[in-house]
Amino acid sequence: MTIADTNERNILLTVAYDGSGFHGWQRQRNGVRTVQGVLEERLTRVCGEPVALEGTSRTDAGVHALGQRVTWRGCSGIPTKRIPGAVNNSLDDIIVLSAEERPEDFHARFSATGKTYVYKYAVRPPLPVFVRNYACLLAAGLNTDRIAEAVKYLIGTYDFASFQAAGGTPRETTVRTIYGIDVREGTGTDPGGNSYETLEIEVTGDGFLYNMVRIIAGTLAAVGTGDFAPEEIVVIIEKKERVFAGPTAPPQGLYLKEVYFEDFGERFER
Amino acid sequence: MTIADTNERNILLTVAYDGSGFHGWQRQRNGVRTVQGVLEERLTRVCGEPVALEGTSRTDAGVHALGQRVTWRGCSGIPTKRIPGAVNNSLDDIIVLSAEERPEDFHARFSATGKTYVYKYAVRPPLPVFVRNYACLLAAGLNTDRIAEAVKYLIGTYDFASFQAAGGTPRETTVRTIYGIDVREGTGTDPGGNSYETLEIEVTGDGFLYNMVRIIAGTLAAVGTGDFAPEEIVVIIEKKERVFAGPTAPPQGLYLKEVYFEDFGERFER
Repeated sequence: MTIADTNERNILLTVAYDGSGFHGWQRQRNGVRTVQGVLEERLTRVCGEPVALEGTSRTDAGVHALGQRVTWRGCSGIPTKRIPGAVNNSLDDIIVLSAEERPEDFHARFSATGKTYVYKYAVRPPLPVFVRNYACLLAAGLNTDRIAEAVKYLIGTYDFASFQAAGGTPRETTVRTIYGIDVREGTGTDPGGNSYETLEIEVTGDGFLYNMVRIIAGTLAAVGTGDFAPEEIVVIIEKKERVFAGPTAPPQGLYLKEVYFEDFGERFER
Repeated sequence: MTIADTNERNILLTVAYDGSGFHGWQRQRNGVRTVQGVLEERLTRVCGEPVALEGTSRTDAGVHALGQRVTWRGCSGIPTKRIPGAVNNSLDDIIVLSAEERPEDFHARFSATGKTYVYKYAVRPPLPVFVRNYACLLAAGLNTDRIAEAVKYLIGTYDFASFQAAGGTPRETTVRTIYGIDVREGTGTDPGGNSYETLEIEVTGDGFLYNMVRIIAGTLAAVGTGDFAPEEIVVIIEKKERVFAGPTAPPQGLYLKEVYFEDFGERFER
């Protein structure tokens, strides 16, 4: 039976969410609130048939998404274009940004060729109560030149076993390619009108190991405070053991920003 | 028995909180999470004796505070200066910004001579999931010149019965003085890095009736969209009935910004 036979469509959604009210992306049996669970429940109602979603990234509890991608086959009850409006109507901390149709063999996870994550640090926020769910708070005094230097040693194709936490899905290989890391300093304003410094670390790669971006973010912050020399990144990679890298930065600073499905390597040959 | 007798101090705290995780300021018997409840529990542990707080403003569920003021007598167990550090250590969405000692007859509510509230609108936010708890979302196209004109009719001493919701503590009089209203347009940036327009309405007065600032904010937005003419504010005030004013703006846009204890009127004679 193919999609053509059943008139099913293969639908791709782009979804953003505030992760602070969820126990992560993945549906769980114990009834806790997850993004997949809430979205499936709502889509099942809108489509008038059971919906089981595939998400590109199984974001952890507290992690946010600006562009999670989600596929499933079905939804004969409503035109594709009308799905975002129908779903968003009753959602609060999830928003469906777009719905498109894709060929039969397209899959949110298996068709992805790369992803961009952003990790956000807030430096010296005057009222941390308002940013605590959306950034990791850091004391002032990070040396960002050191961070920019350390970043060079992470870009490329390496065995990133040192940057993998225990507990994730077992992987065939721990070799990954990081295409680019942007380190950006900026300013933010909290709801109290107080401005604060921000440091954003944007990482693009062909795929990431469990907690890999958060360990990169934590290790780069440790480079910035002086706990590691920038060139120690080379040694950390060579050791291939988690214990040699820096701490895992907390989840609330992490954002899944973008997912790519095209031939991705060329984007970064610049 | 006086404070001097018992070595009690009269302590004044300045407190900020993210109201989105609380059922308002006021302690409740049914065990729901309130700012007063959480703060009393924590201070009772820090001070080693039962603490019953008085807050200047009984903020509603979802309403935030940048400078709530809180008094109580006691806390012999720890120097006043060390209270913020000891308390903040275990708090997440509340922060004690300062602790000071005040004379025996000073009271957070009865000694207050005025307050400033800010109401925040977010206009056309690209990712409302991240601002939904911190501002009221509005469609674009508000006419802020009209709002600025309407504001003039609210400043002064009037019977604001039309701007009082049912359900609050009964008051002796519904006459209040609004010293000033600032209307500010600006821009914000959501965690996705998308900027959006903001409209802030900052209201300073000698005191406010139940939901008064939210009804002012909702009525001014209605002036901005054209539902009311600016000069209709005069008629609304004269009517002295809630039904003539505009809608009550939702709680998440409201911030208790500052509380004043000095001779307040002179501040605004400018």
